[in-house]
Amino acid sequence: MLGDNPPGADNQQETKESPLDPNWICGFVDGEGCFSVAIHRNPFVRRTRGWQLGAVFQVTQHEGKRGVLERLAGTFGCGAVRSKGPRSSVLVYSVSSLHDLEERIIPFFRAHPLHVKQADFDRFAGVVGAMLRKEHLEPAGFDRIVRVAYEMNAVGKQRSRSLEEVLLGSSETIRQAPFRG
Amino acid sequence: MLGDNPPGADNQQETKESPLDPNWICGFVDGEGCFSVAIHRNPFVRRTRGWQLGAVFQVTQHEGKRGVLERLAGTFGCGAVRSKGPRSSVLVYSVSSLHDLEERIIPFFRAHPLHVKQADFDRFAGVVGAMLRKEHLEPAGFDRIVRVAYEMNAVGKQRSRSLEEVLLGSSETIRQAPFRG
Repeated sequence: MLGDNPPGADNQQETKESPLDPNWICGFVDGEGCFSVAIHRNPFVRRTRGWQLGAVFQVTQHEGKRGVLERLAGTFGCGAVRSKGPRSSVLVYSVSSLHDLEERIIPFFRAHPLHVKQADFDRFAGVVGAMLRKEHLEPAGFDRIVRVAYEMNAVGKQRSRSLEEVLLGSSETIRQAPFRG
Repeated sequence: MLGDNPPGADNQQETKESPLDPNWICGFVDGEGCFSVAIHRNPFVRRTRGWQLGAVFQVTQHEGKRGVLERLAGTFGCGAVRSKGPRSSVLVYSVSSLHDLEERIIPFFRAHPLHVKQADFDRFAGVVGAMLRKEHLEPAGFDRIVRVAYEMNAVGKQRSRSLEEVLLGSSETIRQAPFRG
Protein backbone atom coordinates (compact mmCIF):
# COMPACT_ATOMS: atom_id res chain seq x y z
CA MET A 1 0.00 0.00 0.00
CA LEU A 2 2.66 2.52 0.94
CA GLY A 3 5.23 1.30 -1.56
CA ASP A 4 3.09 1.65 -4.68
CA ASN A 5 4.08 5.19 -5.57
CA PRO A 6 6.57 5.41 -8.44
CA PRO A 7 9.99 6.52 -7.21
CA GLY A 8 10.57 10.08 -8.34
CA ALA A 9 14.31 9.70 -8.03
CA ASP A 10 15.84 10.27 -11.44
CA ASN A 11 18.91 11.07 -9.37
CA GLN A 12 19.36 7.35 -8.69
CA GLN A 13 21.24 7.31 -12.00
CA GLU A 14 23.57 10.03 -10.76
CA THR A 15 26.96 9.23 -9.29
CA LYS A 16 29.12 11.01 -6.74
CA GLU A 17 30.96 12.55 -9.68
CA SER A 18 27.84 14.08 -11.32
CA PRO A 19 27.97 17.88 -11.08
CA LEU A 20 25.11 19.48 -9.17
CA ASP A 21 22.69 21.94 -10.79
CA PRO A 22 23.78 25.56 -10.09
CA ASN A 23 20.31 26.63 -8.95
CA TRP A 24 20.08 23.61 -6.62
CA ILE A 25 23.46 24.64 -5.16
CA CYS A 26 22.15 28.18 -4.57
CA GLY A 27 19.06 26.87 -2.77
CA PHE A 28 21.12 24.47 -0.66
CA VAL A 29 23.67 27.14 0.24
CA ASP A 30 20.84 29.58 1.04
CA GLY A 31 19.74 26.94 3.57
CA GLU A 32 22.89 25.22 4.85
CA GLY A 33 25.76 27.42 3.72
CA CYS A 34 27.74 30.11 5.51
CA PHE A 35 30.05 32.85 4.28
CA SER A 36 32.12 34.04 7.21
CA VAL A 37 35.32 35.71 8.33
CA ALA A 38 36.96 33.92 11.25
CA ILE A 39 39.06 35.93 13.69
CA HIS A 40 41.79 33.95 15.48
CA ARG A 41 44.41 34.76 18.07
CA ASN A 42 47.97 34.66 16.68
CA PRO A 43 50.52 36.46 18.87
CA PHE A 44 53.04 36.56 16.02
CA VAL A 45 50.87 38.95 13.99
CA ARG A 46 51.92 42.10 15.85
CA ARG A 47 50.82 44.72 13.32
CA THR A 48 47.17 43.72 13.85
CA ARG A 49 47.44 43.39 17.63
CA GLY A 50 47.69 39.59 17.65
CA TRP A 51 44.60 38.86 15.57
CA GLN A 52 44.54 36.96 12.31
CA LEU A 53 41.69 36.82 9.77
CA GLY A 54 40.52 33.91 7.66
CA ALA A 55 37.70 33.96 5.11
CA VAL A 56 35.82 30.69 4.80
CA PHE A 57 32.87 29.36 2.82
CA GLN A 58 31.20 26.36 4.51
CA VAL A 59 28.28 24.01 4.01
CA THR A 60 27.34 21.64 6.85
CA GLN A 61 25.43 18.37 6.80
CA HIS A 62 24.88 15.27 8.92
CA GLU A 63 27.55 12.60 8.34
CA GLY A 64 24.95 10.34 6.72
CA LYS A 65 24.79 12.83 3.85
CA ARG A 66 28.51 12.91 3.02
CA GLY A 67 27.77 12.18 -0.65
CA VAL A 68 26.11 15.51 -1.31
CA LEU A 69 29.03 17.46 0.23
CA GLU A 70 31.48 15.48 -1.89
CA ARG A 71 29.46 16.29 -5.01
CA LEU A 72 29.57 19.95 -3.95
CA ALA A 73 33.37 19.73 -3.65
CA GLY A 74 33.53 18.03 -7.04
CA THR A 75 31.29 20.62 -8.70
CA PHE A 76 33.31 23.55 -7.34
CA GLY A 77 36.60 21.72 -7.92
CA CYS A 78 38.07 22.89 -4.61
CA GLY A 79 37.72 22.61 -0.85
CA ALA A 80 37.48 19.57 1.41
CA VAL A 81 34.90 17.63 3.43
CA ARG A 82 35.87 17.05 7.07
CA SER A 83 34.24 16.12 10.35
CA LYS A 84 33.35 19.11 12.53
CA GLY A 85 35.20 17.49 15.45
CA PRO A 86 36.36 14.15 16.83
CA ARG A 87 32.98 13.39 18.45
CA SER A 88 30.75 15.25 16.01
CA SER A 89 28.28 13.62 13.63
CA VAL A 90 28.34 16.78 11.51
CA LEU A 91 30.42 17.14 8.35
CA VAL A 92 31.62 20.43 6.90
CA TYR A 93 32.56 21.20 3.31
CA SER A 94 34.85 24.19 3.52
CA VAL A 95 36.87 26.40 1.22
CA SER A 96 39.34 28.75 2.90
CA SER A 97 42.01 29.23 0.24
CA LEU A 98 41.82 32.85 -0.92
CA HIS A 99 42.80 31.70 -4.39
CA ASP A 100 39.96 29.15 -4.60
CA LEU A 101 37.46 31.62 -3.12
CA GLU A 102 38.46 34.26 -5.70
CA GLU A 103 38.72 31.90 -8.69
CA ARG A 104 35.84 29.47 -8.06
CA ILE A 105 33.41 30.26 -5.23
CA ILE A 106 32.92 34.01 -5.76
CA PRO A 107 32.50 33.87 -9.57
CA PHE A 108 29.93 31.08 -9.13
CA PHE A 109 27.73 33.10 -6.76
CA ARG A 110 28.17 36.27 -8.85
CA ALA A 111 26.73 34.32 -11.80
CA HIS A 112 24.01 32.62 -9.70
CA PRO A 113 22.62 35.05 -7.09
CA LEU A 114 21.31 33.84 -3.74
CA HIS A 115 17.86 34.65 -2.34
CA VAL A 116 18.57 34.48 1.41
CA LYS A 117 22.31 35.07 1.91
CA GLN A 118 23.09 37.53 -0.88
CA ALA A 119 23.98 40.39 1.50
CA ASP A 120 26.40 38.18 3.45
CA PHE A 121 27.92 36.96 0.18
CA ASP A 122 28.45 40.52 -1.08
CA ARG A 123 30.28 41.46 2.13
CA PHE A 124 32.28 38.22 2.00
CA ALA A 125 33.35 38.88 -1.61
CA GLY A 126 34.45 42.37 -0.57
CA VAL A 127 36.53 40.97 2.31
CA VAL A 128 38.20 38.36 0.08
CA GLY A 129 39.10 41.10 -2.42
CA ALA A 130 40.59 43.23 0.37
CA MET A 131 42.56 40.26 1.73
CA LEU A 132 43.96 39.48 -1.72
CA ARG A 133 45.19 43.09 -1.77
CA LYS A 134 46.72 42.35 1.69
CA GLU A 135 44.76 45.15 3.31
CA HIS A 136 44.07 42.94 6.36
CA LEU A 137 47.77 42.94 7.28
CA GLU A 138 47.74 46.66 8.14
CA PRO A 139 45.89 48.01 11.21
CA ALA A 140 43.49 50.32 9.33
CA GLY A 141 42.50 47.70 6.76
CA PHE A 142 42.22 45.05 9.48
CA ASP A 143 39.82 47.23 11.48
CA ARG A 144 37.66 47.93 8.40
CA ILE A 145 37.43 44.21 7.55
CA VAL A 146 36.60 43.25 11.14
CA ARG A 147 33.72 45.73 11.17
CA VAL A 148 32.35 44.21 7.95
CA ALA A 149 32.81 40.67 9.37
CA TYR A 150 30.71 41.61 12.40
CA GLU A 151 27.89 42.81 10.12
CA MET A 152 27.65 39.34 8.56
CA ASN A 153 25.53 36.34 9.64
CA ALA A 154 22.76 38.00 11.66
CA VAL A 155 25.06 40.86 12.71
CA GLY A 156 27.76 38.74 14.35
CA LYS A 157 25.34 37.14 16.81
CA GLN A 158 27.33 33.89 16.92
CA ARG A 159 30.65 35.65 17.72
CA SER A 160 32.45 34.52 20.87
CA ARG A 161 34.28 37.86 21.16
CA SER A 162 32.84 41.37 21.11
CA LEU A 163 33.80 43.75 18.31
CA GLU A 164 35.40 46.01 20.92
CA GLU A 165 37.62 43.21 22.20
CA VAL A 166 39.00 42.58 18.72
CA LEU A 167 39.42 46.24 17.74
CA LEU A 168 40.93 47.32 21.08
CA GLY A 169 43.01 44.20 21.88
CA SER A 170 46.28 45.76 23.12
CA SER A 171 49.84 44.57 22.56
CA GLU A 172 49.85 43.92 26.34
CA THR A 173 47.30 41.15 25.76
CA ILE A 174 49.44 39.79 22.97
CA ARG A 175 52.56 39.60 25.12
CA GLN A 176 50.59 37.78 27.81
CA ALA A 177 49.37 35.14 25.38
CA PRO A 178 51.36 31.89 25.61
CA PHE A 179 53.83 31.44 22.77
CA ARG A 180 53.91 28.04 21.12
CA GLY A 181 56.95 26.79 19.16
CA MET B 1 37.69 49.37 -0.49
CA LEU B 2 35.15 46.79 0.61
CA GLY B 3 32.25 48.28 -1.29
CA ASP B 4 33.82 48.32 -4.73
CA ASN B 5 32.69 44.84 -5.78
CA PRO B 6 29.77 44.87 -8.20
CA PRO B 7 26.59 43.60 -6.57
CA GLY B 8 25.82 40.15 -7.95
CA ALA B 9 22.18 40.47 -7.03
CA ASP B 10 20.18 40.26 -10.22
CA ASN B 11 17.42 39.19 -7.83
CA GLN B 12 17.08 42.81 -6.69
CA GLN B 13 14.70 43.16 -9.64
CA GLU B 14 12.57 40.31 -8.32
CA THR B 15 9.49 40.92 -6.24
CA LYS B 16 7.74 38.87 -3.57
CA GLU B 17 5.45 37.63 -6.32
CA SER B 18 8.24 36.30 -8.58
CA PRO B 19 8.10 32.50 -8.72
CA LEU B 20 11.22 30.73 -7.47
CA ASP B 21 13.32 28.48 -9.69
CA PRO B 22 12.33 24.79 -9.20
CA ASN B 23 15.93 23.63 -8.74
CA TRP B 24 16.56 26.40 -6.20
CA ILE B 25 13.44 25.21 -4.31
CA CYS B 26 14.80 21.63 -4.31
CA GLY B 27 18.15 22.78 -2.90
CA PHE B 28 16.49 24.95 -0.27
CA VAL B 29 14.08 22.16 0.76
CA ASP B 30 16.99 19.68 0.85
CA GLY B 31 18.49 22.05 3.42
CA GLU B 32 15.61 23.62 5.34
CA GLY B 33 12.58 21.52 4.47
CA CYS B 34 10.90 18.64 6.27
CA PHE B 35 8.39 16.01 5.15
CA SER B 36 6.83 14.52 8.25
CA VAL B 37 3.83 12.70 9.69
CA ALA B 38 2.70 14.17 13.01
CA ILE B 39 1.00 11.91 15.55
CA HIS B 40 -1.39 13.68 17.93
CA ARG B 41 -3.57 12.59 20.82
CA ASN B 42 -7.30 12.79 20.02
CA PRO B 43 -9.49 10.76 22.39
CA PHE B 44 -12.44 10.93 19.98
CA VAL B 45 -10.65 8.76 17.42
CA ARG B 46 -11.39 5.45 19.11
CA ARG B 47 -10.72 3.12 16.17
CA THR B 48 -7.04 4.09 16.21
CA ARG B 49 -6.67 4.02 20.02
CA GLY B 50 -6.91 7.79 20.44
CA TRP B 51 -4.18 8.75 17.99
CA GLN B 52 -4.61 10.98 14.95
CA LEU B 53 -2.23 11.39 12.03
CA GLY B 54 -1.39 14.52 10.05
CA ALA B 55 0.97 14.75 7.08
CA VAL B 56 2.80 18.07 6.81
CA PHE B 57 5.41 19.62 4.54
CA GLN B 58 7.35 22.43 6.24
CA VAL B 59 10.17 24.85 5.53
CA THR B 60 11.58 26.92 8.40
CA GLN B 61 13.47 30.21 8.36
CA HIS B 62 14.37 33.08 10.67
CA GLU B 63 11.68 35.77 10.82
CA GLY B 64 13.99 38.20 9.04
CA LYS B 65 13.67 36.04 5.93
CA ARG B 66 9.87 36.00 5.71
CA GLY B 67 10.01 37.10 2.06
CA VAL B 68 11.52 33.86 0.82
CA LEU B 69 8.88 31.74 2.59
CA GLU B 70 6.13 33.92 1.11
CA ARG B 71 7.62 33.43 -2.36
CA LEU B 72 7.64 29.68 -1.68
CA ALA B 73 3.94 29.83 -0.74
CA GLY B 74 3.25 31.86 -3.87
CA THR B 75 5.18 29.48 -6.12
CA PHE B 76 3.38 26.41 -4.76
CA GLY B 77 0.04 28.26 -4.62
CA CYS B 78 -0.88 26.76 -1.26
CA GLY B 79 0.07 26.65 2.42
CA ALA B 80 0.70 29.45 4.90
CA VAL B 81 3.59 31.21 6.66
CA ARG B 82 3.23 31.39 10.45
CA SER B 83 5.37 32.00 13.49
CA LYS B 84 6.57 28.82 15.19
CA GLY B 85 5.22 30.11 18.50
CA PRO B 86 4.32 33.30 20.40
CA ARG B 87 7.93 33.90 21.53
CA SER B 88 9.72 32.32 18.59
CA SER B 89 11.78 34.21 16.01
CA VAL B 90 11.37 31.28 13.62
CA LEU B 91 8.81 31.22 10.83
CA VAL B 92 7.37 28.08 9.26
CA TYR B 93 5.86 27.69 5.81
CA SER B 94 3.62 24.66 6.08
CA VAL B 95 1.21 22.68 3.92
CA SER B 96 -0.96 20.14 5.74
CA SER B 97 -4.04 19.91 3.49
CA LEU B 98 -4.05 16.42 1.95
CA HIS B 99 -5.58 17.93 -1.20
CA ASP B 100 -2.79 20.50 -1.58
CA LEU B 101 -0.11 17.92 -0.79
CA GLU B 102 -1.52 15.55 -3.44
CA GLU B 103 -2.24 18.21 -6.07
CA ARG B 104 0.70 20.58 -5.66
CA ILE B 105 3.56 19.52 -3.38
CA ILE B 106 3.94 15.85 -4.35
CA PRO B 107 3.76 16.38 -8.15
CA PHE B 108 6.38 19.14 -7.84
CA PHE B 109 8.92 16.92 -6.07
CA ARG B 110 8.12 13.97 -8.37
CA ALA B 111 9.08 16.22 -11.29
CA HIS B 112 12.11 17.71 -9.49
CA PRO B 113 13.89 15.05 -7.40
CA LEU B 114 15.73 15.93 -4.21
CA HIS B 115 19.34 15.00 -3.47
CA VAL B 116 19.26 14.79 0.34
CA LYS B 117 15.63 14.13 1.36
CA GLN B 118 14.40 11.94 -1.50
CA ALA B 119 13.89 8.83 0.70
CA ASP B 120 11.82 10.84 3.23
CA PHE B 121 9.81 12.37 0.39
CA ASP B 122 9.06 8.93 -1.14
CA ARG B 123 7.76 7.66 2.23
CA PHE B 124 5.79 10.87 2.73
CA ALA B 125 4.14 10.58 -0.71
CA GLY B 126 3.19 6.99 0.13
CA VAL B 127 1.62 8.07 3.43
CA VAL B 128 -0.36 10.87 1.79
CA GLY B 129 -1.68 8.40 -0.81
CA ALA B 130 -2.72 5.99 1.95
CA MET B 131 -4.41 8.78 3.92
CA LEU B 132 -6.33 9.89 0.83
CA ARG B 133 -7.58 6.30 0.61
CA LYS B 134 -8.53 6.68 4.34
CA GLU B 135 -6.35 3.74 5.33
CA HIS B 136 -5.17 5.63 8.43
CA LEU B 137 -8.66 5.50 9.92
CA GLU B 138 -8.53 1.71 10.40
CA PRO B 139 -6.22 0.09 12.99
CA ALA B 140 -4.17 -2.01 10.52
CA GLY B 141 -3.60 0.87 8.09
CA PHE B 142 -2.85 3.23 10.97
CA ASP B 143 -0.16 0.89 12.33
CA ARG B 144 1.46 0.53 8.88
CA ILE B 145 1.56 4.31 8.40
CA VAL B 146 2.98 4.93 11.88
CA ARG B 147 5.81 2.46 11.20
CA VAL B 148 6.65 4.33 7.98
CA ALA B 149 6.44 7.68 9.80
CA TYR B 150 9.00 6.47 12.34
CA GLU B 151 11.40 5.53 9.54
CA MET B 152 11.41 9.15 8.31
CA ASN B 153 13.68 12.04 9.34
CA ALA B 154 16.73 10.24 10.72
CA VAL B 155 14.62 7.26 11.81
CA GLY B 156 12.24 9.18 14.07
CA LYS B 157 15.04 10.53 16.28
CA GLN B 158 13.12 13.72 17.05
CA ARG B 159 9.95 11.87 18.18
CA SER B 160 8.68 12.69 21.67
CA ARG B 161 6.92 9.30 21.92
CA SER B 162 8.32 5.82 21.29
CA LEU B 163 6.89 3.73 18.45
CA GLU B 164 5.72 1.20 21.05
CA GLU B 165 3.75 3.84 22.94
CA VAL B 166 1.84 4.79 19.79
CA LEU B 167 1.24 1.24 18.55
CA LEU B 168 0.30 -0.19 21.95
CA GLY B 169 -1.59 2.83 23.40
CA SER B 170 -4.62 1.18 25.04
CA SER B 171 -8.19 2.44 25.25
CA GLU B 172 -7.49 2.76 29.02
CA THR B 173 -5.00 5.53 28.22
CA ILE B 174 -7.56 7.17 25.99
CA ARG B 175 -10.24 7.25 28.66
CA GLN B 176 -7.79 8.81 31.09
CA ALA B 177 -6.94 11.62 28.68
CA PRO B 178 -8.77 14.88 29.50
CA PHE B 179 -11.70 15.58 27.18
CA ARG B 180 -11.98 19.08 25.78
CA GLY B 181 -15.30 20.44 24.53
